[in-house]
Amino acid sequence: MSKEITSRAQDYSQWYNDLVIKGGLADYSGVKGCMVIKPYGFGLWENMRDVLDKMFKDTGHQNAYFPLFVPKSLFEAEEKNAEGFAKECAVVTHYRLKSDPADKHKLIVDPEAKLEEELIVRPTSEAIIWSTYKTWIQSYRDLPLLINQWANVVRWEMRTRLFLRTTEFLWQEGHTAHATKQEAVEEAEKMLEVYADFAENYMALPVIKGIKTPNERFAGAEDTYCIEALMQDGKALQAGTSHFLGQNFAKAFDVKFSDKENKLDYVWATSWGVSTRLIGALVMAHSDDEGLVIPPRIAPLQAVIVPIYKGDEQRAILGMKAKEIIQQLKDLGIRAKYDDNDNNRPGWKFAQYEMQGVPVRITLGARDLENNNVEVARRDTKEKYTVSVNGIAFYVKELLEEIQLHMFNRAKTFRDEHITPADTWEQFEELLEGKAGFIAAHWDGTGETEDKIKELTKATIRCIPLNNKQENGKCILTGKPSTQRVLFARAY
Amino acid sequence: MSKEITSRAQDYSQWYNDLVIKGGLADYSGVKGCMVIKPYGFGLWENMRDVLDKMFKDTGHQNAYFPLFVPKSLFEAEEKNAEGFAKECAVVTHYRLKSDPADKHKLIVDPEAKLEEELIVRPTSEAIIWSTYKTWIQSYRDLPLLINQWANVVRWEMRTRLFLRTTEFLWQEGHTAHATKQEAVEEAEKMLEVYADFAENYMALPVIKGIKTPNERFAGAEDTYCIEALMQDGKALQAGTSHFLGQNFAKAFDVKFSDKENKLDYVWATSWGVSTRLIGALVMAHSDDEGLVIPPRIAPLQAVIVPIYKGDEQRAILGMKAKEIIQQLKDLGIRAKYDDNDNNRPGWKFAQYEMQGVPVRITLGARDLENNNVEVARRDTKEKYTVSVNGIAFYVKELLEEIQLHMFNRAKTFRDEHITPADTWEQFEELLEGKAGFIAAHWDGTGETEDKIKELTKATIRCIPLNNKQENGKCILTGKPSTQRVLFARAY
Repeated sequence: MSKEITSRAQDYSQWYNDLVIKGGLADYSGVKGCMVIKPYGFGLWENMRDVLDKMFKDTGHQNAYFPLFVPKSLFEAEEKNAEGFAKECAVVTHYRLKSDPADKHKLIVDPEAKLEEELIVRPTSEAIIWSTYKTWIQSYRDLPLLINQWANVVRWEMRTRLFLRTTEFLWQEGHTAHATKQEAVEEAEKMLEVYADFAENYMALPVIKGIKTPNERFAGAEDTYCIEALMQDGKALQAGTSHFLGQNFAKAFDVKFSDKENKLDYVWATSWGVSTRLIGALVMAHSDDEGLVIPPRIAPLQAVIVPIYKGDEQRAILGMKAKEIIQQLKDLGIRAKYDDNDNNRPGWKFAQYEMQGVPVRITLGARDLENNNVEVARRDTKEKYTVSVNGIAFYVKELLEEIQLHMFNRAKTFRDEHITPADTWEQFEELLEGKAGFIAAHWDGTGETEDKIKELTKATIRCIPLNNKQENGKCILTGKPSTQRVLFARAY
Repeated sequence: MSKEITSRAQDYSQWYNDLVIKGGLADYSGVKGCMVIKPYGFGLWENMRDVLDKMFKDTGHQNAYFPLFVPKSLFEAEEKNAEGFAKECAVVTHYRLKSDPADKHKLIVDPEAKLEEELIVRPTSEAIIWSTYKTWIQSYRDLPLLINQWANVVRWEMRTRLFLRTTEFLWQEGHTAHATKQEAVEEAEKMLEVYADFAENYMALPVIKGIKTPNERFAGAEDTYCIEALMQDGKALQAGTSHFLGQNFAKAFDVKFSDKENKLDYVWATSWGVSTRLIGALVMAHSDDEGLVIPPRIAPLQAVIVPIYKGDEQRAILGMKAKEIIQQLKDLGIRAKYDDNDNNRPGWKFAQYEMQGVPVRITLGARDLENNNVEVARRDTKEKYTVSVNGIAFYVKELLEEIQLHMFNRAKTFRDEHITPADTWEQFEELLEGKAGFIAAHWDGTGETEDKIKELTKATIRCIPLNNKQENGKCILTGKPSTQRVLFARAY
């Protein structure tokens, strides 16, 4: 199997597609720009979702569900938001098909079933949610309102990539309402911390927490916080965003509350989201030329046992031992499987599980077992160990933690080595061409300069890191004065 | 609060709406026919979903995710299925909005962004899934393919009711592929059993397992199995369906597999689903004029502690005791909450939790506590008990199980009392007018008779029960010979 993967050096982009498809994460579909998330990929998403969902609930949020469709009049209520998404939204105009008079096996849109008002398939749900919050919020007693939704959204993308950019994707979107500006800002910052915690401690993905420039803000936000990750090809990937929305949506949808003194004021808002795009980040941050490498804490399958046997008798003996080990692993909460499928040879299975990034493989061989040993192989470093069957489950449990930590540290070392200062335009361009990753450079603070740099180099300002060091310098492009470096990169 | 609920006797339909809205399950939305599932209602759905999801996984199924949109050419491939859903589907025709030249604050559909091929918002996913299975299935080794999807679907309904019939709803849809007809039939039957198990043992909802007449089959199915429940107003509600699809979709999408002898054949299929509609069934089967009554096993909140105190000192003492009890309850896996919100009086809270159907309420009073007692009230029978604080958590745990059982038995007694044989047309009509529930009557087996009875009485054949008793008789309408009684009812 592994032979079929294009190497990173050969064609990074093809390598990525090979991993996603041959690793069983996703597949193209019969709908342009949309993908099918296959069981293995969906199992990964379920694990990610469950961890995040618990984090949201532990921070006081509740889930709810709002309609898929946004009537056009609601969609356009917050102008900046509408303008930001109008160019890429799917529009429902009719509610019925009928037989084609020219060919009764075909269907056509029934012109008599035209909607009075078009419906937009949600690209994000601020509009539909804030039109609802208007009826839910009257008094300070109704605040804060801390709601999250797991949903599908649609953004009409011309150029799509599996997971990274698809017309439909799955995500969660938090939408909160607060009595004060400070509380809303704190919420936006808190959820950024939750995302960073999740990325680093579960996905083993080191991230830089920062704030977007006005150019790169979410349409309708006052401030967009983000976590930025680095991929192995030196490109950045925005892994999650958290927006302080000010009173923009409250004003657009007339959502006011009376405070303790009975004074009316508009509500303050945040929204925040991460999506199936994270899976793309996961693939590109950790995997290698043999296939996926999945961090143990979110891996659908954490350990697999592959037997090597000759004949039915050996198979039966190994099967009994495997059953014991599987039970011990499961007792420790380890997601484990025994694969004694007789259709495939052990070598094929090794390659297959390597491709799928299963963190630990245990090889059960008749001879090793005579010495009460098994072979344990870890996916991240490809090291192999001979390990006693006694206490094997505890061994694997510790090894999984070690792999998790090692994956994070490896990715962090790579990331840290790929943040480079540039002080001249020449340096800047050279670093970009050299796939140097994040470039820390001075910028004059204007959107025009930012646009110009993007036009010239395809690099964007990924973020202004939180707690950024202040230092005097000159803008890399215009030479105008600047008080801090910002992080540039080409990005997914 | 409870005073505001319309009684069942007064207006059953309004009673239902009051419960759903004032109980905090759902709300109307700004989109015609679509609802908002509020946090309490969504918490209920999450519990239902988690139980079902585990049941599906325990029976070997995996989750995946397929696109929301179905291109028209795929949609129309299985003709019966297409014909069945064409009349009620939302159609995406454009992928962009633009500024209205007449008013720059408004948006209009951009006529230049018309799709070459219209996209149908999935009303069900057989078409999109089977167009994908074509690429996944080549050999018997790829079978069975046992996949489930949790998703939103859209069916354009003219008359909608919260949960019972909404334009968009949430559901799960299983789609499986098999090498033999027998295996597919067994799968359809197995999933019907899973649904019945879930309905009876978690929702406390007794159901009749049966098979639909050809008239009432799912569009594209060879056989539709169903579970039918009875509401308190004597109307039936289809609570879940499982379809044996034969080779219809395999033929429509050309999905063949080679068997062990290398012979090519079309694959056999099933699909099966339950939806948020189940929440409507839950409400109507169990609730009373004071509000919702939710079965403990799926209740978002199983026990609530309400303190009765005067002054801060008493409040502090009760608070400490409550904290202990809450911890004991949580240690036994009971979803519990302490409500010492000072804005509301105990009486208001009692009515509120009664309205929301919380199974057990514990009242913590200063005087009772002196005697080391609390008052425990159960929602289903409204009985109250004085109970010692020692071992209170174990007491509540047992009580929750008793409530679960009692709710099932009560609903089953009601259901069993509402299955009545009718031997003449007069009897049949009289029973229907008397809201008698299911009517067991002979039927001549033709679709015409079934249509005629529906036209005359609005009653439909809910199902032919599995393992139905065979007996000779005469059709209730035509007098033609019949070998078994079938179950008629008016239905939601």
